[in-house]
Amino acid sequence: MSSQPARSMPFPMLNERPEWVALAKHRKAMESVSIKSLFAQDAQRFDRFHVSHEGMLLDYSKHRVTAETMTLLVNLARACDVEGWRDRMFEGDAINESEGRAVLHTALRRPAADKVMVDGENVMPFVHGVLKQMKAFTESVLSKQWKGHTGKPIETVVNIGIGGSDLGPYMVCEALKPFKTRLDVRFVSNVDGAHIHETVKGCDPETTLFIVASKTFTTQETMANADTAKKWLLAALKDQAAIAKHFVALSTNEKAVQAFGIAPENMFPFRDWVGGRYSLWSAIGLSICLAVGFDNFEKLLAGGHAMDRHFQTAPLDKNMPVIMALLGLWYRNFWNADSIAVLPYSQYLHRFTAFLQQMDMESNGKSVDRQGRRVGYETGPIVFGEPGTNGQHAFYQLIHQGTSLIPCDFIGAVNIENGLQEHQRMLLANMIAQAQALMDGRGLAASGNDPQKVFEGNRPSTTILFDRLDPIRLGMLIALYEHKVFVQGILWNINSFDQWGVELGKVLAKNILSAMDKGGAPDGADSSTAGLLAALRKFHH
Amino acid sequence: MSSQPARSMPFPMLNERPEWVALAKHRKAMESVSIKSLFAQDAQRFDRFHVSHEGMLLDYSKHRVTAETMTLLVNLARACDVEGWRDRMFEGDAINESEGRAVLHTALRRPAADKVMVDGENVMPFVHGVLKQMKAFTESVLSKQWKGHTGKPIETVVNIGIGGSDLGPYMVCEALKPFKTRLDVRFVSNVDGAHIHETVKGCDPETTLFIVASKTFTTQETMANADTAKKWLLAALKDQAAIAKHFVALSTNEKAVQAFGIAPENMFPFRDWVGGRYSLWSAIGLSICLAVGFDNFEKLLAGGHAMDRHFQTAPLDKNMPVIMALLGLWYRNFWNADSIAVLPYSQYLHRFTAFLQQMDMESNGKSVDRQGRRVGYETGPIVFGEPGTNGQHAFYQLIHQGTSLIPCDFIGAVNIENGLQEHQRMLLANMIAQAQALMDGRGLAASGNDPQKVFEGNRPSTTILFDRLDPIRLGMLIALYEHKVFVQGILWNINSFDQWGVELGKVLAKNILSAMDKGGAPDGADSSTAGLLAALRKFHH
Repeated sequence: MSSQPARSMPFPMLNERPEWVALAKHRKAMESVSIKSLFAQDAQRFDRFHVSHEGMLLDYSKHRVTAETMTLLVNLARACDVEGWRDRMFEGDAINESEGRAVLHTALRRPAADKVMVDGENVMPFVHGVLKQMKAFTESVLSKQWKGHTGKPIETVVNIGIGGSDLGPYMVCEALKPFKTRLDVRFVSNVDGAHIHETVKGCDPETTLFIVASKTFTTQETMANADTAKKWLLAALKDQAAIAKHFVALSTNEKAVQAFGIAPENMFPFRDWVGGRYSLWSAIGLSICLAVGFDNFEKLLAGGHAMDRHFQTAPLDKNMPVIMALLGLWYRNFWNADSIAVLPYSQYLHRFTAFLQQMDMESNGKSVDRQGRRVGYETGPIVFGEPGTNGQHAFYQLIHQGTSLIPCDFIGAVNIENGLQEHQRMLLANMIAQAQALMDGRGLAASGNDPQKVFEGNRPSTTILFDRLDPIRLGMLIALYEHKVFVQGILWNINSFDQWGVELGKVLAKNILSAMDKGGAPDGADSSTAGLLAALRKFHH
Repeated sequence: MSSQPARSMPFPMLNERPEWVALAKHRKAMESVSIKSLFAQDAQRFDRFHVSHEGMLLDYSKHRVTAETMTLLVNLARACDVEGWRDRMFEGDAINESEGRAVLHTALRRPAADKVMVDGENVMPFVHGVLKQMKAFTESVLSKQWKGHTGKPIETVVNIGIGGSDLGPYMVCEALKPFKTRLDVRFVSNVDGAHIHETVKGCDPETTLFIVASKTFTTQETMANADTAKKWLLAALKDQAAIAKHFVALSTNEKAVQAFGIAPENMFPFRDWVGGRYSLWSAIGLSICLAVGFDNFEKLLAGGHAMDRHFQTAPLDKNMPVIMALLGLWYRNFWNADSIAVLPYSQYLHRFTAFLQQMDMESNGKSVDRQGRRVGYETGPIVFGEPGTNGQHAFYQLIHQGTSLIPCDFIGAVNIENGLQEHQRMLLANMIAQAQALMDGRGLAASGNDPQKVFEGNRPSTTILFDRLDPIRLGMLIALYEHKVFVQGILWNINSFDQWGVELGKVLAKNILSAMDKGGAPDGADSSTAGLLAALRKFHH
């Protein structure tokens, strides 16, 4: 708790703060206010409730908020010392208290001349040293200087990782397809053998490079897939020496990496102040470098850094991630919204929401506050979504006419790389129309007096619009959500940077694996666990 | 309302039925009951709370239910006449009342000798006539008898459709990859030009066949993509006559299909009693036939039919879809659960949850009952999920330690096609362990007295286990969820078969498109809509 000033009073519970109480009172006054009526009352509403920054626009006018709401929300942010925590994060304080670590993915996108001290060491030379190593490697592979064991250049790259070592890099590689290099970059994550089996199908062992991404080099799924990849390679090349030319590691466990057969110079390190879900900016981004080139990776970093500067310097009421965080809290805690829908109007962003699920739900899916108390309020929401317009033909029905309130984030880029302008116009028209329809709704008379065709409306949404989906804007977009999630964690007074909730399942899986070996069930297992294991044996043939 | 017997009393509101009131009372008694304690009290709990049917096992023992709970839930199902509605659906009554249509996707999987009357016509000869047409076409393409315009056989198939014309067939083709034919079958759905652009990249126009799937042949997204595909083809083949050899249609609009250039004999029809989200069993399944062969499509139908028979004949308390529906209602209406997580432990099922999102959320995301009254209870839940083990490294943290209750469905198949047994053991061990961890939790002492490492446990889950992911089991699995969603719609007294909630956005999109043409905003538009349109113009370069 070193980052907290000493206190004689117990730390206040969020929902006992006067700023929270003021919001609860204001919420009642907002009960019957429609967003549509707020537009009718104020012709300048869009001007007042949007923010622009470096080619990105955040429109939050279609929300159940007035100027007073925003003031009260910002008051809460101040009371929770969002600015202080933000600054401590950027400065390298150990704000991940439960693990005693700094949280410094922002350092990964800072210029070399900056100074960021962790335990007395300026980490920037390390950060830029690894970038240099990544650059050299990327150029060597792309220029065909790097050759496989039989002398052929690399054509296919398979990234083996799971969680943050997969979702971020995979999402970025899909998003930046128009910028891709000559390499075919693929991803394997699931321990399901089907994943590696289907991914290497049709690959040529002589021209395939595997990236094994695991901080500890012990992640069960990743090592199972790496071992299978190694067997696949050696079955064709029949020489242990081939491993060094076809495998590199993103890891910190040099001993295990060497034991696997990977040369130490082909291990790309990162530090313990980079959490898995923020790691695409680190050595974990090597697959991105190979997929779109090192220059584009640097632009991605620059985009993230641009959003960092905005987050650090914009006043709270003009601060994009702060505004998004406060609106999220407003619905989660005062309007009973359990979930948010994130809806990119871009097929290239088809994995953005899956990536966000980890970033948001693993960060803020906690019930115990930093003081160890069970929270008396809701924390992290469920995040779901698919690209529009596909989602419109799937689950939007429920967002429009279901019984749950689901705030939506619409995300769109204006300019495209493929020249299909008519498609793009339809795409963006649909995005803007959905936001309008959610807000406006349609009354009984306009619905032909058929109650089943009524749209209640007053459903809130945010629109994030930017000029083009390029590495810089993508970097900004990712960092925008990272900081939103960070601010919410501060408001909810939870540690967004640990993930104790994933531990228990791992322990129990080991017990079950060893019970499988013996043909029974773990000692003292419930009859369901035992029954399912018996069913497995019965089905197995 | 012809399917409802005449009544002198107003139709009761669901939450005013005595069976509902009894459940509400029982719910209070269950408040402090832990699932774990129910296992401790009853060594036979797994035996009592699981059902098996034709190679598929449904374990629902890890739920907050006792024998009494299940009796009370089944009483509610009887009161709502689930059995009567079920029988009326299978018999072809017009249970889609708002559109005056029958709901007969189940007829698509029935044997030719069966008789299903709709408006005085036995539809089974039509159903099997289309199947024959699909079979002949599939065999002609696969055997290379069908040739492209320049005389080459087809190698790539691109299905163009959206919503039900995409999600179902795509999900099935991914799920059945181990059964695939020589054809490379791809899917384009999004109106985003990036989708068609990236999908046809690298395809050879001479060997590519497009399937245009749109009932009305007017769906905006699908026709935009079909037009772009046509241009792409004609740019290479330079002859209008080529269209007839490279395009087929799944549609009922013969005139529009012919105007597009498709020969009438290459139009595969279906009837208005097949809703989009249930259409993979119809002509919309042609891409499945080409991807895995007609025999496997027939097995898929047989699997669906096997589940139909179970649903029609099993007593309610042994009826898989009924049990799943009742448990869903139990959590949604009595435990405040807004969402369910569907977690397939199979990479091949990576799109199963996206498919379910449409099936479930479009069906039951409604707020007005069949009598036109605003419902006084929650209806359809949010459905989300990604394959395990990937989800474990992403959002499971929130399911384990977040503040929301999220019932989970675990889905696993035992036997595999790829021989990677060690992977499969880990996969299934993880699945069983997660269900156990969610239920058991971990107390303070076992968590080293660290409250942040405590798992509260008592989190419910269902496990669906089957012998292997083949066409038959997949058919059963899909039909299981279809009938679950059907039963919930009956319980909630809503029409699960219309989707008025998608209309308003379409209308507004047209207005916005025409405003874009003129360079302004639609008449009377709010300042946000106008502001976003102005931003589009500003960003556009």
